Amino acid sequence: MTYAAPLSDIRFTLDDLGLLQRVAGLPGCEEVSIGLVDAILEEAGKLAGEVIAPLNATGDVQGASVENGVVRTADGFAEAYRAFTDGGWAGIPFDPDYGGQGLPWLVTVAAMEMFAAANTAWTLCPTLTLGAVELLSTHGSKEQKDIFLPRLVSGEWTGTMNLTEPQAGSDLGALRSKAEPDGDHYRITGQKIFITYGEHDMTDNIVHMVLARTPDAPKGPKGISLFIVPKFLVNTDGSLGQRNDVRCVSLEHKLGIHASPTCVMALGENDGAIGYLVGKENEGLHCMFTMMNNARMNIGISGLAIAERAYQQARDYARDRVQFGPIIQHPDVRRMLMTMRAQTEAMRGFAYEAAAYLDIAKRHPDTDARQAAQTRVDLLIPVVKAWCSDSGVEVASLGIQIHGGMGYIEETGAAQHYRDARIAPIYEGTNGIQAVDLVSRKVLRDGGTAANDYIDSLRSEIKTLKDVDLGAAAQLSTHLSAAVDALARATAWLVENGPGNQALALAGASHYLKLFGIVAGGAAMARAASGAANGLKNGGDHSFYQSKLSTAAFYATQMLPQADALATAITDGGEAVLAIEEDLL
Amino acid sequence: MTYAAPLSDIRFTLDDLGLLQRVAGLPGCEEVSIGLVDAILEEAGKLAGEVIAPLNATGDVQGASVENGVVRTADGFAEAYRAFTDGGWAGIPFDPDYGGQGLPWLVTVAAMEMFAAANTAWTLCPTLTLGAVELLSTHGSKEQKDIFLPRLVSGEWTGTMNLTEPQAGSDLGALRSKAEPDGDHYRITGQKIFITYGEHDMTDNIVHMVLARTPDAPKGPKGISLFIVPKFLVNTDGSLGQRNDVRCVSLEHKLGIHASPTCVMALGENDGAIGYLVGKENEGLHCMFTMMNNARMNIGISGLAIAERAYQQARDYARDRVQFGPIIQHPDVRRMLMTMRAQTEAMRGFAYEAAAYLDIAKRHPDTDARQAAQTRVDLLIPVVKAWCSDSGVEVASLGIQIHGGMGYIEETGAAQHYRDARIAPIYEGTNGIQAVDLVSRKVLRDGGTAANDYIDSLRSEIKTLKDVDLGAAAQLSTHLSAAVDALARATAWLVENGPGNQALALAGASHYLKLFGIVAGGAAMARAASGAANGLKNGGDHSFYQSKLSTAAFYATQMLPQADALATAITDGGEAVLAIEEDLL
Repeated sequence: MTYAAPLSDIRFTLDDLGLLQRVAGLPGCEEVSIGLVDAILEEAGKLAGEVIAPLNATGDVQGASVENGVVRTADGFAEAYRAFTDGGWAGIPFDPDYGGQGLPWLVTVAAMEMFAAANTAWTLCPTLTLGAVELLSTHGSKEQKDIFLPRLVSGEWTGTMNLTEPQAGSDLGALRSKAEPDGDHYRITGQKIFITYGEHDMTDNIVHMVLARTPDAPKGPKGISLFIVPKFLVNTDGSLGQRNDVRCVSLEHKLGIHASPTCVMALGENDGAIGYLVGKENEGLHCMFTMMNNARMNIGISGLAIAERAYQQARDYARDRVQFGPIIQHPDVRRMLMTMRAQTEAMRGFAYEAAAYLDIAKRHPDTDARQAAQTRVDLLIPVVKAWCSDSGVEVASLGIQIHGGMGYIEETGAAQHYRDARIAPIYEGTNGIQAVDLVSRKVLRDGGTAANDYIDSLRSEIKTLKDVDLGAAAQLSTHLSAAVDALARATAWLVENGPGNQALALAGASHYLKLFGIVAGGAAMARAASGAANGLKNGGDHSFYQSKLSTAAFYATQMLPQADALATAITDGGEAVLAIEEDLL
Repeated sequence: MTYAAPLSDIRFTLDDLGLLQRVAGLPGCEEVSIGLVDAILEEAGKLAGEVIAPLNATGDVQGASVENGVVRTADGFAEAYRAFTDGGWAGIPFDPDYGGQGLPWLVTVAAMEMFAAANTAWTLCPTLTLGAVELLSTHGSKEQKDIFLPRLVSGEWTGTMNLTEPQAGSDLGALRSKAEPDGDHYRITGQKIFITYGEHDMTDNIVHMVLARTPDAPKGPKGISLFIVPKFLVNTDGSLGQRNDVRCVSLEHKLGIHASPTCVMALGENDGAIGYLVGKENEGLHCMFTMMNNARMNIGISGLAIAERAYQQARDYARDRVQFGPIIQHPDVRRMLMTMRAQTEAMRGFAYEAAAYLDIAKRHPDTDARQAAQTRVDLLIPVVKAWCSDSGVEVASLGIQIHGGMGYIEETGAAQHYRDARIAPIYEGTNGIQAVDLVSRKVLRDGGTAANDYIDSLRSEIKTLKDVDLGAAAQLSTHLSAAVDALARATAWLVENGPGNQALALAGASHYLKLFGIVAGGAAMARAASGAANGLKNGGDHSFYQSKLSTAAFYATQMLPQADALATAITDGGEAVLAIEEDLL
């Protein structure tokens, strides 16, 4: 149940797939070299493997607990958090002016992958803080930034997102929490649920980002404002002041991520919680949307992360377990291991690619280039979130299966990965919501332009493959071409039929997202195969690069053929989805 | 979280799909009519819904516990068991001479589906007893039958299977428990693990079926014998005698089925447990194999059962939950519900068909007809076990997803179905073992004869569909034909390549099993569509039959297209499965 950071695989993705090169020349990234990144990730890997990972199983058993509003995290969590902030890991991608490292997201996600693989429940705390920093960096006033950012970027304080209410999940427009103006601040009352690390004992203060309605706000999504609600108010000298009227009422009993306190929060049970408006009134959802790409990226990364960890554990077990010889020699066990491995590598190549576009969209000196990258990010992010989180569950399930009966026994640890992985398709926008976002906002709204640009770029990449000797992965370009054709077919069908019949288009939305993910993963595998072929030509580690070619070949023959079936389900299957009357279901 | 037995759907499967008609004329089944079966299943449904189902969630929370070898089952379990035996449900398919009902397996599986849907953990106890009865009925001596069968068939005592040891799971040939002859019995010593209901407080006695080795037995699978080891010895007058030297040492902490005690059993810690040889020495595995078809059938049925229960719960939630309107109206939620529904109905149609073949194989007056049915059973059973258990997990996972955030909260109950469902792909032979069994024993061993016979029978059925107006499911025969072609292509490839390269064939074994399941489920949906068209023509319930046609149309367009991709993974993907050296994985 140990975790060894897959440094060679991550290095391969960053370097041999050409991703770091895309980012290294950007303003502020001039000093980002593979040497520097290696050094950073090696340290991150140590922290993940030696400090954070050993708390994964114990945290699962112990969980978080609450008594009189005080949440105790599992043993060792606070110490691990201190090691994390001491190492400066809380501020990897952030503005050096506020104490951040100013590194690209491409490097950040690599580190976040390791932390999430080590301990998904623990890593949620810094992940939520990342979101709060993003929000304040973009929408906070100078004064708000000066007060809160240094302490969030350093990790001295953590951040939360207080969005969901019992009647307002996917539909945030239905939320009811109130914010009454009161001098230079607001008094907030309401109940929030599913608040990750809404209360804990790892830091002195917690900065809640809270959505609520002001008294005259319009109904629905356009009447929601965003507020900073610190657990402890902050004096002008930066010291902590009085306790704010925000309290953890209870914790949820969940399928997994037991060590992550999922809080029911009561705001304003007494005088009203003091909150500071971020941005303008009624623009809260808009503010929130600007950080969603990063948040969704991180959830996708956590799917990848659990997949990697589940793979390592299953592989080690398969080497040791003897039933008719070591079970790693049985073809069906190898099929499962190769599926886990190929899915994991495809996710990594694809999700890191999206992170590179995020950096280009933020940093490129040319406006058009920034805009083009942002369009690509917007297109890819729902796929990163949903495809990687679904794949994480599938891979963790294979991890159980390889363990046989032992996989079902909790002490083995394979089941924890499966339970922990299962949240990612749900939170930060369910995967159904991601699919609707992809089809309606990212494909239909621009008449398929962004999607077709992406498809064209894949076709260009496939053409260049023809000049490369892919060895074991020779059949990849044929299978990838066919899969891209299927994606093009589905896209064209959506663009043609969606405007006239949105329900019919949305009936295939999840299939479209999966199809997109399989193809995008295939493109990442093509880059991997190409990079491996290049590495071989340059006399690199023969076994390593050969195994990358074999993994790409596996993906080509086992994953990519699914694309056509998904396209057919989209083009032919929508009517049957909608046919049965509600009360006959 | 209630469960309502799906009596109309079960009746539809038994009657409109023509299954009951195949069985009703068999010797001993002369009185089996749809009217009788309706009455039986209505009673079974009441017991399942009113008595057994309410204990599902409470049993999950409370679990089973052990202290000093005494296992306490969850509150209400013993009372529910008494209601079950009082109703005569323990003996549905068994010989009336020993107190059974003499009903066909086709009816038995329908009742077992309801019990397992109501409470999977509870139902494992009677399921294991069914296995013990099968074993003793086939291989026990007259004396053994007379002593044990009446009390097992009535359910007064329960039965267990003591097979697994720490080093002997899939490879039973590796087991080490010893049986020393001692007069008319044997003294058995050893440790067994994963013994379901190995100890409990619901009956006065437990009859363990134990595999062990006699002193001079050959090594490996041919040196294993089968013994009856009762918890309490039985006096000649049938009363209980002394406590035998078999003891529950501990219970496992499992991902799911918490209420089912999974015991570590110690045999012979003192004088050796007294055991009675069943059949001949060294023929234990052979004896065990004869009951495996029924046992595996029941595991497949439990996958179907959890799918049905998860569907009901998700549908009810989707009707009640409002986010931008009732979520049941959202196309992606409908897609999930329809997937759950279509998978469930396909499983039911297919698994019940296999049960009908089981009855024909047991009861048909003609030897050739019995043999042909047995060949078909042998072919279909691994598919029933593995495809239905995998599908049960998929469906339960969709059930969580439809609940959104609430699905991850344990109190909702959706997560329990998911946890409970996950054992079925593992026990009673992992699904990997099923796939190997299907490909090596059922397809390659006879050169594809049985598989091709099945494929031919499907093609004949498809031909007859041409004369039926399938309405909404008109496209079914096209998609089914293509899927059958894919199965035929994969079968031909296996038969051609398997004998020369077994590893390559087995690399695709799980894909082949899934492909087989999808096609077999499609054939069941074709029978359903045909039955529904017939029902409509005869003026049956319009909405009901129309919904069956729509479900078949959904299966045709959403599930059947996957067949081709699976065939390609088999024919093109095997080499990549085996390519990477072990130490590079």
